[in-house]
Amino acid sequence: MSAHPCVGILGGGQLARMLVLSGASLGLRFRIMDTVADACAGQVAPLQVGDYRDEAALAEFAAQVDVATFDFENVPAAGAEWLAARVPVFPNPGALAVAQDRLAEKTLFGELGIPVPAFAAVATRDELERALDQVGVPCILKTRRLGYDGKGQFRIRSRDDAAAAWEALGPQAQGVGLIVEAFVPFDRELSVVAVRGRDGEFRTWPLTANWHVDGVLSTSLAPAPQVDAALAQTAVDYARRLAGRLDYVGVFALELFCREGELLANEMAPRVHNSGHWTIEGAETSQFENHLRAVLGLPLGSTAMRGHACMLNWIGKMPDARAVLEQPGGHWHDYGKQPRAGRKVGHATLRADTPQALAQALEQVGHALGRQAQVAPPLQALHPL
Amino acid sequence: MSAHPCVGILGGGQLARMLVLSGASLGLRFRIMDTVADACAGQVAPLQVGDYRDEAALAEFAAQVDVATFDFENVPAAGAEWLAARVPVFPNPGALAVAQDRLAEKTLFGELGIPVPAFAAVATRDELERALDQVGVPCILKTRRLGYDGKGQFRIRSRDDAAAAWEALGPQAQGVGLIVEAFVPFDRELSVVAVRGRDGEFRTWPLTANWHVDGVLSTSLAPAPQVDAALAQTAVDYARRLAGRLDYVGVFALELFCREGELLANEMAPRVHNSGHWTIEGAETSQFENHLRAVLGLPLGSTAMRGHACMLNWIGKMPDARAVLEQPGGHWHDYGKQPRAGRKVGHATLRADTPQALAQALEQVGHALGRQAQVAPPLQALHPL
Ligand SMILES: Nc1ncnc2c1ncn2[C@@H]1O[C@H](COP(=O)(O)OP(=O)(O)O)[C@@H](O)[C@H]1O
Ligand SMILES: Nc1ncnc2c1ncn2[C@@H]1O[C@H](COP(=O)(O)OP(=O)(O)O)[C@@H](O)[C@H]1O
Ligand SMILES: [Mg+2]
Ligand SMILES: [Mg+2]
Repeated sequence: MSAHPCVGILGGGQLARMLVLSGASLGLRFRIMDTVADACAGQVAPLQVGDYRDEAALAEFAAQVDVATFDFENVPAAGAEWLAARVPVFPNPGALAVAQDRLAEKTLFGELGIPVPAFAAVATRDELERALDQVGVPCILKTRRLGYDGKGQFRIRSRDDAAAAWEALGPQAQGVGLIVEAFVPFDRELSVVAVRGRDGEFRTWPLTANWHVDGVLSTSLAPAPQVDAALAQTAVDYARRLAGRLDYVGVFALELFCREGELLANEMAPRVHNSGHWTIEGAETSQFENHLRAVLGLPLGSTAMRGHACMLNWIGKMPDARAVLEQPGGHWHDYGKQPRAGRKVGHATLRADTPQALAQALEQVGHALGRQAQVAPPLQALHPL
Repeated sequence: MSAHPCVGILGGGQLARMLVLSGASLGLRFRIMDTVADACAGQVAPLQVGDYRDEAALAEFAAQVDVATFDFENVPAAGAEWLAARVPVFPNPGALAVAQDRLAEKTLFGELGIPVPAFAAVATRDELERALDQVGVPCILKTRRLGYDGKGQFRIRSRDDAAAAWEALGPQAQGVGLIVEAFVPFDRELSVVAVRGRDGEFRTWPLTANWHVDGVLSTSLAPAPQVDAALAQTAVDYARRLAGRLDYVGVFALELFCREGELLANEMAPRVHNSGHWTIEGAETSQFENHLRAVLGLPLGSTAMRGHACMLNWIGKMPDARAVLEQPGGHWHDYGKQPRAGRKVGHATLRADTPQALAQALEQVGHALGRQAQVAPPLQALHPL
């Protein structure tokens, strides 16, 4: 490989953008492929606009890269495999395929002894009824594929909701497939962000606590408060088993529900993950740099934390940066996107040496930006009543 | 200004490259102007190739940027002024002009009560003799302008060297001017990297100890060991006086000689500085981000350190990255340049929580790369005999 290898990234959103910004220091060059011309990673690296199913476009891309990876997990498996026959692709397309399908993913979790909520596949209206018998209510009907940020989900509170659920998602039963999952009345959501090298070396960042609003990540806090060593060990074990089985290379996140001290796996994301954005300032090595180190076969960097960090997602439009920049540990990430309802346009990370100092920064930022509701959950986790 | 303002940078070397990589997170766009097409910042931002004295090129550049700054301090003053009449330019061209001329710079230091080595301007062979009478030997004959990395200097050990010195640099007396400076048998070299905002807010990173080889920075260690509060305060005061007088906006470095507890100012660099590269991982906010915050009128970030950091410059060609990447606090910076003798092609920063851990990392890296000589000075400073 050249002294300055070129990394191809399928998908050109903020994850690709942050990969480029962290990987340039390693002397890497990048090439991005995305379906849209204004993909925000195109501001920091050459962007090729194309369809992931178009072999001519993939061939052009493959000709220019030494290794390829993903910012977008829903690249069609066929495209990923076509590419992998030509250049090294990490994570491998088989791992990607499992993570793309909630049914395959939960089935694998079960095989690996990783507890999951009760679930059942659904192909027809009748099967939905049988799934409800089996899984019970409340539950959630979800598309098996292509869901993200809570999209493609219908909450079934009682059996009376079955008809409405089928009306909403039934038309997708043949295309992307459907699954029913038991609703988990979790105490909290945690994630393990993990990285595995080409040589099998495995590391995790400290467990992160996450809060979602309308199915979209709003806030992450690391290290997750009040996690005992046994719970952390269990979570790490699950991630390690998964990575080993999939022969995974790169960063991934395992999303977990925690209820009365028990962990249930929700899903895995086969890429750098929004709940790991705090690692840019809050860890010795960020998830972005370690993903690239893994993909290139370089030694993995330390995942040790520096103090305490809280990430606040900015959705729809960017708030005024000043309140964050005025904080001693305030860091700003504007993805360079145009504002649009529901769009992840940026985030802030607050870092501090103590939980007390982090809580104070959160209070001040929440107040200054009128975002008390967004900072309330991490504040409560930091100051339990 | 737009939500994603465009920052123009005159000069497209590694400093511009690191400005871009740190500023993209602030949502900034960049445009680089350099005289050569393979300027390494052109790998991360749009590059315009042009001459800094060409008004048409400057006009094209000015039309596309909201604010402009420098990676290269030797942009001709006339070009900087022409630009400043059209877009805000920070630091202001007057400050740049002072820093470009060792005579103006040392004269100003004197006016501000900042001690300097004895010096005298030299325009002719006769004036060189008079300067040697006045300053004494040993001394150094330097070009007033356009020197960098120890270039344009001739060491005069005894009066017998005068003829050779004149032969070497005399031809430049009319063009860039010459100056004789007393040779300072310093105990060590220190630098203050400082930032001043548009509103006059002034901050410094902890004092850094620097070691040069053949006039080129080789290694920096921060915080500089064995600096008492009074010495640090004096250094910071000098930097503050200088910044105030020049109405300076942005980051600059003040290079100091330290001899028997006294500080003498050597020179200032009106830009982010090689002795501040460790701030990327070793400080809450890097010199690159704070330079951009200052230039844009945003609140300055905390300059507090995270532990202890040592920067090793890679000159000529990059060593193997693995030895550094294997260190828990090892960070790699490859500027994407082609190897060339004497060229700054990259650096590494080792960061650790304690001086002991930093010393251990330095020893291991020095051994693995066969660079014991490069790591010896910081090792000795960390473990004084
Ligand atoms: N079975 C469930 N029980 C409770 N909450 C759930 C369940 N499934 C999803 N959620 C909530 O919705 C969020 C998004 O759902 P998820 O399945 O992770 O989809 P996505 O792929 O959109 O992230 C979860 O993080 C959680 O807050
Ligand atoms: N007057 C001096 N006495 C002793 N050493 C000097 C003197 N001037 C320069 N040096 C050495 O040479 C290095 C480079 O010189 P400097 O004047 O800073 O030029 P440059 O602009 O190339 O950095 C200094 O950092 C120092 O190590
Ligand atoms: Mg999810
Ligand atoms: Mg110097």
